[in-house]
Amino acid sequence: MEEQLLAWLAERIPSHRGVPLGPGDDAAAIDLRGGPAIATVDMITDGVDFLLEEHELRRIGRKAIAINLSDIAAMAARPVAALASVALPHEMTLDGAKQLVEGMLDVATQFDTALAGGDVGSWDDRLAISVTLLGAATENGLLRRDGGRPGDRIFVTGHLGGSILGHHFDFTPRIEEALLLNARYKLSAGMDISDGLSIDLSRLAKKSGVGAQLDLSRVPIADAARQLDDDASPLEHALGDGEDFELLFTASPDQAERIAAERPLDPLGVELTEIGRLIDEPGLWALDESDERVKLDITGWRHDFGG
Amino acid sequence: MEEQLLAWLAERIPSHRGVPLGPGDDAAAIDLRGGPAIATVDMITDGVDFLLEEHELRRIGRKAIAINLSDIAAMAARPVAALASVALPHEMTLDGAKQLVEGMLDVATQFDTALAGGDVGSWDDRLAISVTLLGAATENGLLRRDGGRPGDRIFVTGHLGGSILGHHFDFTPRIEEALLLNARYKLSAGMDISDGLSIDLSRLAKKSGVGAQLDLSRVPIADAARQLDDDASPLEHALGDGEDFELLFTASPDQAERIAAERPLDPLGVELTEIGRLIDEPGLWALDESDERVKLDITGWRHDFGG
Repeated sequence: MEEQLLAWLAERIPSHRGVPLGPGDDAAAIDLRGGPAIATVDMITDGVDFLLEEHELRRIGRKAIAINLSDIAAMAARPVAALASVALPHEMTLDGAKQLVEGMLDVATQFDTALAGGDVGSWDDRLAISVTLLGAATENGLLRRDGGRPGDRIFVTGHLGGSILGHHFDFTPRIEEALLLNARYKLSAGMDISDGLSIDLSRLAKKSGVGAQLDLSRVPIADAARQLDDDASPLEHALGDGEDFELLFTASPDQAERIAAERPLDPLGVELTEIGRLIDEPGLWALDESDERVKLDITGWRHDFGG
Repeated sequence: MEEQLLAWLAERIPSHRGVPLGPGDDAAAIDLRGGPAIATVDMITDGVDFLLEEHELRRIGRKAIAINLSDIAAMAARPVAALASVALPHEMTLDGAKQLVEGMLDVATQFDTALAGGDVGSWDDRLAISVTLLGAATENGLLRRDGGRPGDRIFVTGHLGGSILGHHFDFTPRIEEALLLNARYKLSAGMDISDGLSIDLSRLAKKSGVGAQLDLSRVPIADAARQLDDDASPLEHALGDGEDFELLFTASPDQAERIAAERPLDPLGVELTEIGRLIDEPGLWALDESDERVKLDITGWRHDFGG
């Protein structure tokens, strides 16, 4: 089956001006003009990040690429090329493997990203897909996690929580938003929310050597977080659920004021919300109803389907 | 366990001048000066490429990096940085995971290659390791598969066959050899032997739009190929066994004459053997005892431990 799949891939993978030598040799040659290459890798596995019996292969393939695009967005870099390695269960059909690749190509093409290489193998176990995404820094520099300063305002795109109802497959990587924001404003730090707002914000604050204080009433809660019928409140879902793949970033008070006034993401139809500020005191905090600072539990969650 | 492993990795991974921003942010920044980035990916899995119950974790980790270095060598490029994603079985200990990484670092350090990023997850299934290796082209250009011409001589480094006895773990990626040969001579085409001489040479010939004719008496046979006690002859092992990870390349007759006279790999203690020539007639051929051209079976073999 691998041989037939490789033959199909040789026809199917579109050529890309950023990839002077694509699949078919020992390695690909990729053109990453302008500054250092940005690289990220994520592996998704059956039973942890998706359920092969339940989810469409095309959505699974899309997710494998999209989560890596989200990491490129988190650096405010431009994606260029992806390399994918796939361990296929022996019972996977050729058509199934093609669907997986079609899902990869859907989102790669949407973000002008080449599928530059890969490795396909079969084994007795479950489906595992690893994607490495290569990008290029822009002239506006990289959006790192370690530049936040006390007083900086904290922003988030979109709405949070409940991604398990479908958003973890269907989210839009915030590439365009990150490039636009990083071009128009001086952002101090940023990352994508992959494990949950509270744990990811804690990581950003720790990397920056500061703490963070959330205004809980401002956290934008996704409809899906309200639809989940369990012990956690919608706010708890917004704080703790993983795989939002929204952008979390900080900016100085004057930059934040400009952002709030100019609403730069309105033309893209994406909400941008100021949800708190960085503070001297390490840790994650919130203001309660009487404006007292209370310590928040860090509830980040690597979502896991019975794995 | 993943959290502890990530904490250990943050201390253990050495800094590298080619990686201005290493593990710990959303993506790594990698400096690939001089021409296009070269990228390759390979996944190895328990039961197919190694046996977790039988083989040391350190050797498994080394192999995951080394097979990708071999692909960078096959392009005559210089390796710069690796990204690894690992799906760990739940029963894997922290110490085991560290051994895996130590094996990766052994060979990465030997070839001045940074471990620039990664992704670690656990699941209910078997160990799978995917490595993406990034390299940089040199001013001597890339060694592609498609430049061979009829009349070109075919060379191979080292000795072939029987790698299952240990060579598939302990081989030396031919980085130094490839850089040296590509700097001193004009090579027409090249690749590494990963699936077996006969199938890989067929691929090179097909990509170049030609055929190949082997002088079977010249094929350098590894001692391990003679030690295997099965139905196949040592020569059949040398032609068909996978995972030699030696360099296979072609050069015009005048370049080949210079190579034969100058013996450029002698200072590295590596044998270099001329084993045949490219011909107009497509397919893989050999000369028999009466100098008649006979068609060879293509016996390439993706080695598979009961997988």
